[in-house]
Amino acid sequence: MSAELNEVLMYPIKIRAKLDQNECPLKPPKVVLESIKKSLEVINRYQTSMLFNYILELYSDYCNVNKNHLFMTPGIDVIFEKILHYMRGKTILVTKPTYFLFEEQAKQFGVKLEYIVLQEPYFSLELDAIYSRLKKIDMIFLANPNNPTGQYVLDQKEVQELIEEFNGPIIIDEAYYEYGGKTAIQMVENYDNLIVTRTLSKAFCLAGIRASFIALSKNLRNLFFDRIEMFRISTPTLLASKAALENRGYIKHVVAYTERERNKIFEGLKKMGLIPYPSVTNFLLVNTKMEGLQGYLYSKGILVKDLSNMMGSTFIRVSVGLPKENDLFLEETKNYLNLKLSTSEI
Amino acid sequence: MSAELNEVLMYPIKIRAKLDQNECPLKPPKVVLESIKKSLEVINRYQTSMLFNYILELYSDYCNVNKNHLFMTPGIDVIFEKILHYMRGKTILVTKPTYFLFEEQAKQFGVKLEYIVLQEPYFSLELDAIYSRLKKIDMIFLANPNNPTGQYVLDQKEVQELIEEFNGPIIIDEAYYEYGGKTAIQMVENYDNLIVTRTLSKAFCLAGIRASFIALSKNLRNLFFDRIEMFRISTPTLLASKAALENRGYIKHVVAYTERERNKIFEGLKKMGLIPYPSVTNFLLVNTKMEGLQGYLYSKGILVKDLSNMMGSTFIRVSVGLPKENDLFLEETKNYLNLKLSTSEI
Repeated sequence: MSAELNEVLMYPIKIRAKLDQNECPLKPPKVVLESIKKSLEVINRYQTSMLFNYILELYSDYCNVNKNHLFMTPGIDVIFEKILHYMRGKTILVTKPTYFLFEEQAKQFGVKLEYIVLQEPYFSLELDAIYSRLKKIDMIFLANPNNPTGQYVLDQKEVQELIEEFNGPIIIDEAYYEYGGKTAIQMVENYDNLIVTRTLSKAFCLAGIRASFIALSKNLRNLFFDRIEMFRISTPTLLASKAALENRGYIKHVVAYTERERNKIFEGLKKMGLIPYPSVTNFLLVNTKMEGLQGYLYSKGILVKDLSNMMGSTFIRVSVGLPKENDLFLEETKNYLNLKLSTSEI
Repeated sequence: MSAELNEVLMYPIKIRAKLDQNECPLKPPKVVLESIKKSLEVINRYQTSMLFNYILELYSDYCNVNKNHLFMTPGIDVIFEKILHYMRGKTILVTKPTYFLFEEQAKQFGVKLEYIVLQEPYFSLELDAIYSRLKKIDMIFLANPNNPTGQYVLDQKEVQELIEEFNGPIIIDEAYYEYGGKTAIQMVENYDNLIVTRTLSKAFCLAGIRASFIALSKNLRNLFFDRIEMFRISTPTLLASKAALENRGYIKHVVAYTERERNKIFEGLKKMGLIPYPSVTNFLLVNTKMEGLQGYLYSKGILVKDLSNMMGSTFIRVSVGLPKENDLFLEETKNYLNLKLSTSEI
């Protein structure tokens, strides 16, 4: 893996385990790779609306939402940006912690953030805590499951209650939908204020192609997207998406694999006395109960996400990787723990 | 060609000549195609800022502008959209005709357009005609060379004069730069109000990858683009751009080929008594002096762009295609002409 990361993606260090960006460590099936290769035959040609619309039909079939509610963009931040343009000076309710990219973009667009702090160990939301603040806010953003906590903040019934209670727009990011299987996406057909975002970057094993899907009410679709924007998606990305959605059976294997390895990491960390939190995603939030693990792992070529700014100095987020990567992570975490114990005994 | 367009891009009709979108009919060299294939090895991974920045360095070397003035986006409309967001209710000066996509987007964003009509046969701009209107306008957009006229509207000295005279932002779209070789791009280093847009869709033969480059003053770069947005570009697109810019010698052959075939089409049309206009691009504006040619050609599987709404009912735009496509276009145009002559004689 490392040779490719160095050669193709220009990583300056030799990476032995890449567990920092919640990518799927598995490659998509051959049929998807072959489909991307087909783009070479027409790479000098513009992509077409026929192909774009066909992919929306496939996604419509996959998520059981009418095509007129769907759009596709190169990355989720495109839809965030469009919405945030209209929210300058207004207030958005987010959880603490929430998806860092949304938080970063919101600040950049001059949007005020109202935080609801999520409580251990399940990091779920109390609807009453939101209701008491509805008058102060103009929009709600929830990642569900949440990143970096790895758990649902609301169940489907609670989402529906919230949509009915609140008049402003609600964005629900379902990037990790496939791992836990719960979704609010069909509600976009019945409510005017709901926006659900999805991606092929996670369970579809296609982070490199930048394919995001958005489900929203028709009026919002027309407000935010037009004919021109469908041409932002490249032909390789369209053809990868087409094959992935046509052959989507493979995500079941990805999800099963992820659960298996996630449980292995969970149990391994617990056995060492660290605190991994339950997860319905392809990553684990971990309270390592000691500082400096992320830096130590980095020095060993193991990348995990440092959450010291977001959650406190002993927190990391670790993605489920290949078996070898996960074992290496557990092994080096144990080494660091022993190192810490031996030095603290001195 | 047609089989690929039908199979891969889902065109519903059998196309014998595709001359409607100013694509390059030639494929990029093998080294570029091989580079795209390398993306398959890491398609489950996110793209990196290292790769993105390296491509900006390559483009910096190519256009001789410091990297800090450059950005890359999936399509030119992204930068148009960003700017137009700030221009709602304001007035932009454009030529008539101008690049239809910019005009369409501007209208959609509630921007007022002030037109300067370009005059035959050279469709160039008189600076005095602009100067008399500078007080009425907030921004200027020029495609240079212009689409669909195929000629420069201003030379470099005039562009510089205009930048110095006008305080508001000036966008110059140089999508067809490589064919004529004149550019204002280096001026972004010295002026605060200039934005120059470029693409790999034309002479680089890569319309399918959606790679656009923007050169602009540093303050505008920071206003319009941030860290997050670099992740809208997919790995296949980054790797195609990398190889294309590293091996950019091939565009000389593309340009030479284009000139040769463009001259052939030009002379062929002239001989028939039609009026092709001089061009420094990969397409020709043609006054066919008769109505209905585009529809007739379409019925024969030959796609050209109908300009009846933009320029009048006898105007079309035809891209330079493969020799076989160009010959077919000339042949069927002649057939239509003969058909017209024979019916008008009755």
